[in-house]
Amino acid sequence: MSDKFDAGVLDCAVLNERLRRGPYHRWLGVQVVQATTGEIVVEVPWREEFVVNPDAGYTHGGILATVVDLVADWALVTQLGRPFPTVDLRVDYHRPALKGTLRATGTVIRLGSTFSTCEAYVHDEAGKLVASGRGTYATAVK
Amino acid sequence: MSDKFDAGVLDCAVLNERLRRGPYHRWLGVQVVQATTGEIVVEVPWREEFVVNPDAGYTHGGILATVVDLVADWALVTQLGRPFPTVDLRVDYHRPALKGTLRATGTVIRLGSTFSTCEAYVHDEAGKLVASGRGTYATAVK
Amino acid sequence: MSDKFDAGVLDCAVLNERLRRGPYHRWLGVQVVQATTGEIVVEVPWREEFVVNPDAGYTHGGILATVVDLVADWALVTQLGRPFPTVDLRVDYHRPALKGTLRATGTVIRLGSTFSTCEAYVHDEAGKLVASGRGTYATAVK
Amino acid sequence: MSDKFDAGVLDCAVLNERLRRGPYHRWLGVQVVQATTGEIVVEVPWREEFVVNPDAGYTHGGILATVVDLVADWALVTQLGRPFPTVDLRVDYHRPALKGTLRATGTVIRLGSTFSTCEAYVHDEAGKLVASGRGTYATAVK
Repeated sequence: MSDKFDAGVLDCAVLNERLRRGPYHRWLGVQVVQATTGEIVVEVPWREEFVVNPDAGYTHGGILATVVDLVADWALVTQLGRPFPTVDLRVDYHRPALKGTLRATGTVIRLGSTFSTCEAYVHDEAGKLVASGRGTYATAVK
Repeated sequence: MSDKFDAGVLDCAVLNERLRRGPYHRWLGVQVVQATTGEIVVEVPWREEFVVNPDAGYTHGGILATVVDLVADWALVTQLGRPFPTVDLRVDYHRPALKGTLRATGTVIRLGSTFSTCEAYVHDEAGKLVASGRGTYATAVK
Repeated sequence: MSDKFDAGVLDCAVLNERLRRGPYHRWLGVQVVQATTGEIVVEVPWREEFVVNPDAGYTHGGILATVVDLVADWALVTQLGRPFPTVDLRVDYHRPALKGTLRATGTVIRLGSTFSTCEAYVHDEAGKLVASGRGTYATAVK
Repeated sequence: MSDKFDAGVLDCAVLNERLRRGPYHRWLGVQVVQATTGEIVVEVPWREEFVVNPDAGYTHGGILATVVDLVADWALVTQLGRPFPTVDLRVDYHRPALKGTLRATGTVIRLGSTFSTCEAYVHDEAGKLVASGRGTYATAVK
């Protein structure tokens, strides 16, 4: 697996350039702020369009699910050199996420030759845990 | 629970007006096309921003997770009169979703006094199943 | 995949003989009662050891998780000729399961060349839904 | 919530006495070996009946799911004084679990007034991670 490895995968500028090739990532405004082997940290600035409920100002669960999937997958990039297709995703919602930058950490739980599992924690601007989850990725795909 | 019921929850025009109060729903362009008690069908037209991988044109898993959460939650609207907070979400990805309108069906599996479970199936324009999943909702919330 | 197929996989007597080679299946007393292509139905008779809470008589969630995994995996047997390793499992608990035979149905949601997804519904003796769920199976494993 | 708290919930002997009131826990032979606030560690000795595949000697996924549910739920006991009904469960299978004592750790991710989330890691006798997962518990139930 590691023949795809490239020192650039621990360099935030390189990771951001690659991450932001994806139109949805650009729309989200997501930025990698930290990367070590097996762990990645991103920030997602607030957008008015994230809101599901205009009275309460809650962020849509789908935005939080996106962030969980994104950091779980990109945790793999720090070890395997690229993202992989998501097989399935689990997201737990802990508190409403209100206006403010989200900060999320993705960590590799276990690398496998066919499937790999990663977990993710999403915090709000005040540092409170708003969502967490895990994803399975098809790491055998060529 | 049913004191919150209102005949309007089976009327697509009324449902769309309520659904589209959410800024993220408007951004998605989602439309309810069918509603019966316990089941809702929506369509989501393509947006260039949905893409995660500009070479392959794949839709981001977070968009599909959003659609799963949305129709699972709005299936509850047809029985309980309003959406409820998502407790947790499971999404399975079956095939890459390429350019084209998504069509998704949400169904109530079980209504409970504290939490309820719904499932969702998302098809692409050719009618192929691209994702499916289920969500738990906090239906006791006042 | 279908070179492993064998007409016996739709014959309950043959399926039971194979299923019951597993010591845990024998302990559970599980029996296949119906099998069609892509769907299997089993019954699990009550055992006093299933109980988690001796005051209330509730069946342990792990027993219900076992039944979900078992019928999801054996739904694959009806199409691919054998069970496959579980990648991950999701189980939703709908009602306490009390003393009485459990009846569970497993269905293939989607067959894939690397992984496949199945779902399961578990009913109690009165026909009430006590648990449901889905599993991902590594169907590429040789 | 903490009015149900009792210093005994951090005492392994007391926890084991309570845990082993459950017939299925006795059958599993599970023992609490460590308990701190928000975290519990148990050991489950091998039983021949755990096997699903008599040729390969693999432990049934349902046994591992049981252990995930059990330690996730009993992590709550160390903070809330008692176990709670499982709402739903996610289990990831990382490696086949062969003959040998299982050691599992359950941790509270987040305590809530209605729902709480816990995670679990299960290791084999050699210290390898064989399964992990998370559960949602209905902590509002009286």
